[in-house]
Amino acid sequence: MPLVDLDRFDFLYASRVRGMKTAATRDLMATLSRPGIISLAGGFPDTRLFGEEAFREISRSIAANAAQALQYGPTGGLEAVKDVIVEVMAAEGTPADQESIFVTTGAQQGLDLVAKVFLDEGDGILCEGPTYAGALNAFAAYRPRIAHVPMDRAGMIPSAARETLKRARKQGLSVKFIYTVPNFHNPAGVTMAAERRRELLEIAEEFDLVIVEDNPYGMLRFEGEPLPTLCAIEQQEVGHPDRVVYLGTFSKIFAPGVRLGWVHAQPGILHKINVGKQGADLCSSNLSQMMLASYFKEADWRAYVRRQNSLYRERRDAMLDALAEFMPREVHWTHPEGGLFVWVTLPSYLDATAMLPRAIARNVAYVPGEGFYAGGAGKNHMRLNFSFVEPERISRGIEILAEVVRERMELRSDLERGARQGTRSGTPAGTDQ
Amino acid sequence: MPLVDLDRFDFLYASRVRGMKTAATRDLMATLSRPGIISLAGGFPDTRLFGEEAFREISRSIAANAAQALQYGPTGGLEAVKDVIVEVMAAEGTPADQESIFVTTGAQQGLDLVAKVFLDEGDGILCEGPTYAGALNAFAAYRPRIAHVPMDRAGMIPSAARETLKRARKQGLSVKFIYTVPNFHNPAGVTMAAERRRELLEIAEEFDLVIVEDNPYGMLRFEGEPLPTLCAIEQQEVGHPDRVVYLGTFSKIFAPGVRLGWVHAQPGILHKINVGKQGADLCSSNLSQMMLASYFKEADWRAYVRRQNSLYRERRDAMLDALAEFMPREVHWTHPEGGLFVWVTLPSYLDATAMLPRAIARNVAYVPGEGFYAGGAGKNHMRLNFSFVEPERISRGIEILAEVVRERMELRSDLERGARQGTRSGTPAGTDQ
Repeated sequence: MPLVDLDRFDFLYASRVRGMKTAATRDLMATLSRPGIISLAGGFPDTRLFGEEAFREISRSIAANAAQALQYGPTGGLEAVKDVIVEVMAAEGTPADQESIFVTTGAQQGLDLVAKVFLDEGDGILCEGPTYAGALNAFAAYRPRIAHVPMDRAGMIPSAARETLKRARKQGLSVKFIYTVPNFHNPAGVTMAAERRRELLEIAEEFDLVIVEDNPYGMLRFEGEPLPTLCAIEQQEVGHPDRVVYLGTFSKIFAPGVRLGWVHAQPGILHKINVGKQGADLCSSNLSQMMLASYFKEADWRAYVRRQNSLYRERRDAMLDALAEFMPREVHWTHPEGGLFVWVTLPSYLDATAMLPRAIARNVAYVPGEGFYAGGAGKNHMRLNFSFVEPERISRGIEILAEVVRERMELRSDLERGARQGTRSGTPAGTDQ
Repeated sequence: MPLVDLDRFDFLYASRVRGMKTAATRDLMATLSRPGIISLAGGFPDTRLFGEEAFREISRSIAANAAQALQYGPTGGLEAVKDVIVEVMAAEGTPADQESIFVTTGAQQGLDLVAKVFLDEGDGILCEGPTYAGALNAFAAYRPRIAHVPMDRAGMIPSAARETLKRARKQGLSVKFIYTVPNFHNPAGVTMAAERRRELLEIAEEFDLVIVEDNPYGMLRFEGEPLPTLCAIEQQEVGHPDRVVYLGTFSKIFAPGVRLGWVHAQPGILHKINVGKQGADLCSSNLSQMMLASYFKEADWRAYVRRQNSLYRERRDAMLDALAEFMPREVHWTHPEGGLFVWVTLPSYLDATAMLPRAIARNVAYVPGEGFYAGGAGKNHMRLNFSFVEPERISRGIEILAEVVRERMELRSDLERGARQGTRSGTPAGTDQ
């Protein structure tokens, strides 16, 4: 095949294409499957835990209905799957009924559809800073303006959100929704305190906008007490789903390979989501939905979640221990009570993106922090995943990573010393800083 | 639950929501599963033909790799699936290689991604008139202007396409692509003649735009000789994929329930599609892809396509025979050499949308023609599907439909007579026309 000019049709592409970037995690996937590499870069549950026999069981159970499994399904999902969703949401203390539930092709599609329904070009969104990179990707196609609200150990800071909204209102910016991952945040690993959840709902009421609550990890709690979802608090206060659009997923409590998630929202919003879904992919897979429904009906799904949690807890501990043991004292990190991720803060002068090739050369991978911000912040951060790698390898990976960080810090010290000496002797300061 | 105001958040929705409408076929799905109804409204392959044993076989074969089947996969699809796509495209005489192939969640997602990559608000698209309603839905989210190019028995009329493009250019409208379903068109049932395919490629060259070739039905040919795809002609002439973006699907040759399709295009375009896909749903289902790859490797997929074709041919014949036997002579229809649909033209004064409730009351359903045009044309047309219903029921359905049509025609005659008498006697003419 001849060399193809990648820009051949540049004049034909939509303007939105310029604002869309590939996710570092997705681009890294090929590298990360290289043998020998210790990847702390993924966001994978450990599906090896599921078991062949359980898989055989569920495929056997739907074979008699193969014709339906292989056919098109309803746009909003099968009733049997909606029943499962009602049960799963109840297990997190959130009431739900069939009419408020809409099945999507993973929660990622939920993000795309919510953006499609609410965002005109130039509309505003509030997100945590940092925020889930996949949400930024989904939103980017609709060209919004994104404001990051700072977080601390108790999640998004409500007073900062209120200030941002006031400023936006003064500037005449139309903010459509606040996007939040309240539990075991991706990438930050922190959980939003209960009183902040209530305050965020008040703010949404005050500014008359929607809250998009993305809760993929809520069931993956290793310690501490579960907190009520914003969706549950709202229903308790208002009596029905109103301005909270809740996104759920089966990727962590069942399997990402089936690509199934859901939106829980009031019927008016779901009606728009429904139209968007028809254009996007007609319907989600009947095959996936029937396998899922069979599993949740026949197997002990809560036990599977418990088995995952005990595995992930051990790996989180291995990661936190190794960080404490190996990292220089200038490095800080979060202590997640669940989920999949630890967020690491390097000294402000270090650039985790620039450091990555060095780490990969030494067979360790992570995700640099930049991708979790819309506007180029986050350079001195790394997201580390602990759910997919065995404890000893986590430990070894962190040890190597600490060496790479230390090297960089020493390089900086050398340069600074060189610069000071240069200044003293009258030669120009190093330009490599 | 209290009554919910459907317009509660009208002030927050994106402007695009106003241009998006639900597909008549999708909305009808609930009605159509009513027992006793003869539905000629669907677009379903008959998955009952697939067989439980074949299903058992493929699920058994992937159980050993359950952990992978349940995991996230690469954005552009598994290598094994791309190999299958190369084989399937070769079976239709179209050369392809892995680098030009990108797996999507059904061809519907291909349509969404192509629109996302190329369309700014107000950009132009040329489509056949009528065209696939699902394509109109996918495109509508990006707010293009759609020009329908008339068809005859040999497909889209190239001279009309050229005229439309000249007019658009004069008006300063930026036309991004021509969308076509060349084989056994949905809904029109006609196939584009080979010389017209070449002419369309010349036109695309002349106006420097892309052709989106949507080919879900190409393998479902009951008679006559296969024609080269536009994708094949272009590669023969230019030596590599250039301005043809080809969309394929496994929904008709394997099963819609797995939600798998593909885009074949030059790498520059696929790169943009890749970014769009990350935001839309991260990746397609590994479970679906592994079941598909196993089936195409182990089973005789060509024999399955042949079995479908012999079944659908019999049903098409039953439909054409019944139309000839029962319909009034003022009604016309197409004679498809393959695919799933016959397109019926009623006398111009009849409104197939208004007639539908009457037909459903008599237990027959079809899709009114309106949904296949962007701008309200097509009222006196019906799309009839023959692939999913047994021949005797097709025949009975057409007989009833013919009665409903005849009733409407007689009503019109009565009203006209009444109007003439009314005019003669000086009283006002009937207002029901």
